[in-house]
Parts: sequence; structure tokens; C-alpha cells
Amino acid sequence: MKKGQITIKDIAKELNISASTVSRALNNNPDISPETRELVQKFAKEHKYKPNSMAMNLRSKHSNIIGVIVPELANHFFSSVLSGIELVAEEHDYQVIVCQSLEDYSKEVRNVQTLIKARVCGVLISQSKTTTKYEHFQELIDNDIPIIFFDRICTGIDTGKVVVDDYSGTFNATEYMINTGCKRIAFLGAPPHLEISKNRKNGYLDALRKHHLPIEDDFICGADNKQLGYQTAKELLLSVNKPDAFMCMNDYTASGVLVAAKELGVKVPEEISICGFSNSNISQDTDPMLTTVDQYPAKVGEEAMNLILEKVNNPEKQERKNRIIKTNLIIRNTTKQLPENEE
Amino acid sequence: MKKGQITIKDIAKELNISASTVSRALNNNPDISPETRELVQKFAKEHKYKPNSMAMNLRSKHSNIIGVIVPELANHFFSSVLSGIELVAEEHDYQVIVCQSLEDYSKEVRNVQTLIKARVCGVLISQSKTTTKYEHFQELIDNDIPIIFFDRICTGIDTGKVVVDDYSGTFNATEYMINTGCKRIAFLGAPPHLEISKNRKNGYLDALRKHHLPIEDDFICGADNKQLGYQTAKELLLSVNKPDAFMCMNDYTASGVLVAAKELGVKVPEEISICGFSNSNISQDTDPMLTTVDQYPAKVGEEAMNLILEKVNNPEKQERKNRIIKTNLIIRNTTKQLPENEE
Repeated sequence: MKKGQITIKDIAKELNISASTVSRALNNNPDISPETRELVQKFAKEHKYKPNSMAMNLRSKHSNIIGVIVPELANHFFSSVLSGIELVAEEHDYQVIVCQSLEDYSKEVRNVQTLIKARVCGVLISQSKTTTKYEHFQELIDNDIPIIFFDRICTGIDTGKVVVDDYSGTFNATEYMINTGCKRIAFLGAPPHLEISKNRKNGYLDALRKHHLPIEDDFICGADNKQLGYQTAKELLLSVNKPDAFMCMNDYTASGVLVAAKELGVKVPEEISICGFSNSNISQDTDPMLTTVDQYPAKVGEEAMNLILEKVNNPEKQERKNRIIKTNLIIRNTTKQLPENEE
Repeated sequence: MKKGQITIKDIAKELNISASTVSRALNNNPDISPETRELVQKFAKEHKYKPNSMAMNLRSKHSNIIGVIVPELANHFFSSVLSGIELVAEEHDYQVIVCQSLEDYSKEVRNVQTLIKARVCGVLISQSKTTTKYEHFQELIDNDIPIIFFDRICTGIDTGKVVVDDYSGTFNATEYMINTGCKRIAFLGAPPHLEISKNRKNGYLDALRKHHLPIEDDFICGADNKQLGYQTAKELLLSVNKPDAFMCMNDYTASGVLVAAKELGVKVPEEISICGFSNSNISQDTDPMLTTVDQYPAKVGEEAMNLILEKVNNPEKQERKNRIIKTNLIIRNTTKQLPENEE
């Protein structure tokens, strides 16, 4: 083995395993068997491996550029998160470059490679809907580029995260519609493997349970854009057992439900209530204006940027910090008013 | 002077002028005096300066990454242009990274520096509203990074451009409203130094002239977002000489006009017609849905990407190519119907 400070690559070569395995073993990644983890950590200790000094050396070759990977820039939530990211970046004299995965796993892999080539010093990621493998995220960590997930987080990688309190968001919104008299509430959600889908659905389900309302499988649908919101709402509203409210994954879906309701002559909010999620720009352009859940995207961006800068500037700290951003129900005109004598 | 292939820096040193001046003189930039231009070009010729081989050497150190600078990603037009850019990039195995200037000149300057650091091989730019100096764009060219402008073009730099046919867009929309009976059409525009503002305003003015309608200064306002659209429309609709139509710079402005009209109980389109520009996502969410001008943003992005790839791959070609994207009037429900016996 060569003289001087040893690297992850040296350890990998000596133990005849991949550099990625070494990095994960050193980071106590649960994917690595306890045997391998112990072997790697023992070897690293004996040979005085110092992750931080190496990371710092590498980092000094890096820039003051933070890379951001988002599913889709045309989605108002993500462009609003970026405003928060830019704000904190400006304050600390960092620059921001953005890539979009367009909800495509293989494009997201190329985004990662591009950001490594562009010599970013840290990456903020909200993963694509189609991502179920995480080697590319690990590649960033192996290149000593710290990462922080936001909104659509990856539970397979042990790093800091900024999430929206999705559970409470849909719980509170669903409960509000129940309190205004709705009893048959449909849920239009996103692909079930995403953490945000699970959490929003659980908030919805728990609100029904709390109020002893039946849970109907037919009312739990996959529909997370305007077109699908429109189609799904039309089918449900034409069915015998039609719902009297829609809790939607986002405002685009809710706007599709609204179009279906108008087309069928169903009065909003008298006959059906509709709640979106995001408080995006379109939520005040529809007529009636959408009741929705504000998830403070700029705050998500600010917190994510704060966490990544902390990591970039203190690479020796191993602590994993998470942030949860509280949501707020914005009551507009697609839901009914609470009864006056409501306690 | 050192041996071998001479560079722009060598010429600059020998002639005691800046590298940027040499580059501009070699590119026949009109900002450089004819004397200096001749001096530089003569010197370059005598010393067998070859711009292309040098550019190609430099370029080989570059990447397959195209940088994009846009004013604001939250604006649907720009995120849609990006879709077109990404499409062509995918086809040719190029990667795209994006920076936003947030309409701030000094941030746009830092965007340029960031993209140079990130080793992009070409840059697509739509300039910020506050940009009136162009040295930073020239810096890219001086670094042998070709640039193409799109939509908000910079007339001070001699390079390829992709523009929307803004003039015909507002001309046709204004003429349509005249043909439906409107006689007092207000124009809500953007800062007058931008080429797109001038062209859209000229289209509006020429339509009035063609139909012998008076041009009223009070009807030509600066208002290019929802809030300003709302305020301006409210003032105009409360004035004695109120307009019967609004030709707006974009759909956001038009949506603000619509809110003002509803608030004042002014019927759309019976009492006033409203036309937006962009055919952005909100234009189908308003009620009534907006009549607007489609400027085919994805096509703008595709053409811009085609032009920059041509430059990246054929650095020896000096030809300046421009593309004009035709617009199309999308008639929805905020304007009246043409009279049936209209010829």
C-alpha cells in the first residue's frame, strides 16, 4: 500500500471490495453486513484513516456551487422551494445550479453525474417518482459531496432531510371538511412508494378513523395531476355512491376535479368540497378559489440550504439533522364554512 | 512573445489592450473602433492566429454540459422553454444545468461566473429585466463558450438568437379584439428597454393605426405581473374614459385584470375583453378561461438548443443564425366572438 494518508480507494483495494462499500461501511449504512462493517472500520482505524481531512482536501478543489435536483421545474412547489434556496445562498455567497429529473430515474442518475462534473460542493435533492434505487445518491457521498433530501425524501440513504408535515396537512384538511358536514371523502394521491404519498394518505385515513367514518377502497385513487384529477373525479361523480368531498394530492389535481364538477353541473362547495395541497399559484386563479394546504416551500428551501451549508462547512460532524416544516390549512371557497355553533 | 500558436491573451499583451477588446475586435463587434479592429485583425493575421484550433483545445477541456440562465423559473414560460431544451439535449446526449437571475443584473453576472466554473460548453440566456450592461455575456465569449439568446435577447452582443414573433402576436390579438367591436384597448406592458416589450407594443400600436383608432397615452401602462395587472385595471376601470379591452404582456397580468373586473362587477367579455400572452398553465384555470397568444415555448427551447449545439460542434463557423418562432392566437372566453357576418 502506498505511503501517507490512506483513502477509501486504498482500503477498497486492500480488502478487495468496492469503494462504495467501504464508504457505506464507514458511515454505518445498514445495507452493509455487520461483518463487513466491522472489518472495514477495524482496518480504517489501524491505518489511521481520516475521512475529514481527505474530504476537506477534495472539497477545497470544489467550488462554492450548490447543486439542486428537482423532479420538475414547471411545478410551482419546486420553483418556490428554489426561491428559499437562493435566498440563503445569496446570504452566504454560494451559487446555485439546478437540474431537473423530469420524474425519470435514469435522467436523475445523469443529473448526479453532471453535478459531480460541474464540481458542486453539496447537493439538495427531491427524488423523482420513478426512483427506487439509490446508488447514484451514494455516489455523491462517495465523492465527498454531502447531500440533503427535501420533500420527496429517500429513506434508503442516511443523511439530513427536510420534510413537510404531510400527515398533519391532510389530517387537518380532511378533519375540516368532516366538521363542515362532509361524510364521503375521496383521496386522490400519488404513487404509493413515495414517503409523501404514504404520509398524506395516513393523515386522511386517521381523520376518517377519528370521526368513525367508513374507509372505502373505491375512494382512494391514484391521481396527481390535472388530467388525472379531472378523469377520476368524473368517474367518481358519475358513480352511484358518489363522494361529497375530494382531498387532493396537489392543487393541479384539485383544479382538474373542479373542471369535472363544473362540466357535470355539480355545485362547489354546496354539493362537493375540494381541497388541494401546496397553495400554489393556480390556487387563487381558479373560480371558486381553492381551499388548500400551504406547505411553505420557501421555508423548505431555506432549511435545506441551511442544513447543506452546515455539512459543507463542518464535514467532521457526523450528526444527521432533520427538519419538519409545519403546514397550514388555507380556507378559501371550494369548501363549506364551519357551522356557526361549532365549538 | 512565446513560440507556437498565439492566443488572444498574447495579442492583448503585445498590443497593450484587454483580451476582451481583442476578442471583440476579432469578432467585428461594433463597440470596438475601426482603428483598433484593423490593428488587431492585421496583427492576428501576421502572426497566424487561429481562433478555432484554440477554441477547440479549450473546448475539449469542457464538458457536455449546456448552461441556461433564465430570469425566473417560477414563470411558466421559462420552465416550458426548458422542456424543449431538455428534449434536444437528451437526443444529443448533452446535460443541462440552470441558473436563475431573479431579474437581478448582479445575480446574472454571478450566474455567468458560476457556469464558467461549472465548465459548461455553451450557454443559453434570456436576460433579466434589469440588465443594461453586457460585459458578463462578452466574458463567456472570451472564454470560448458560445452563447445563444432566446426570448429576452440582448442586442448588444453579436450572436445567434431565438425570438418569438412578439409583434405579430400582439398585432393579431389586438386586431381580433377590434374586429369583435372593441374600440378603446389598453396595453399593459413590461419595461420599455426590453426588445420583447418594444415589439409587443409596436404590434398593438400598428393594429390601432391600421383600424384608425386613436392612440391614448393613458391606455399604455407598465404592468407585467398579477398584482400590477390588478391595480392598473382597477384604476383604468374606475376612470371616466374607461377602456373596453386589455391587451396584456402575459397571462399573469391578464389574470390580475380579471380579478379587478370581477371585484368591480364588470362583465367579461360582455363589457371588457381581456387577452393574455403565453398560453401558460394558469390560462385554463381562470374562469372564464383566458384568450391568449401561444408563443410555443418548447419550440423556442428546441431551436435555441439546436443553435447552441451547432456552435459547440462547429466552432469554426462564424455565421450568426437567428430563428423566429411564430405565435398563434388562442381564442377562449375572455374575448367576444367575431360577428357572424364578418368577412
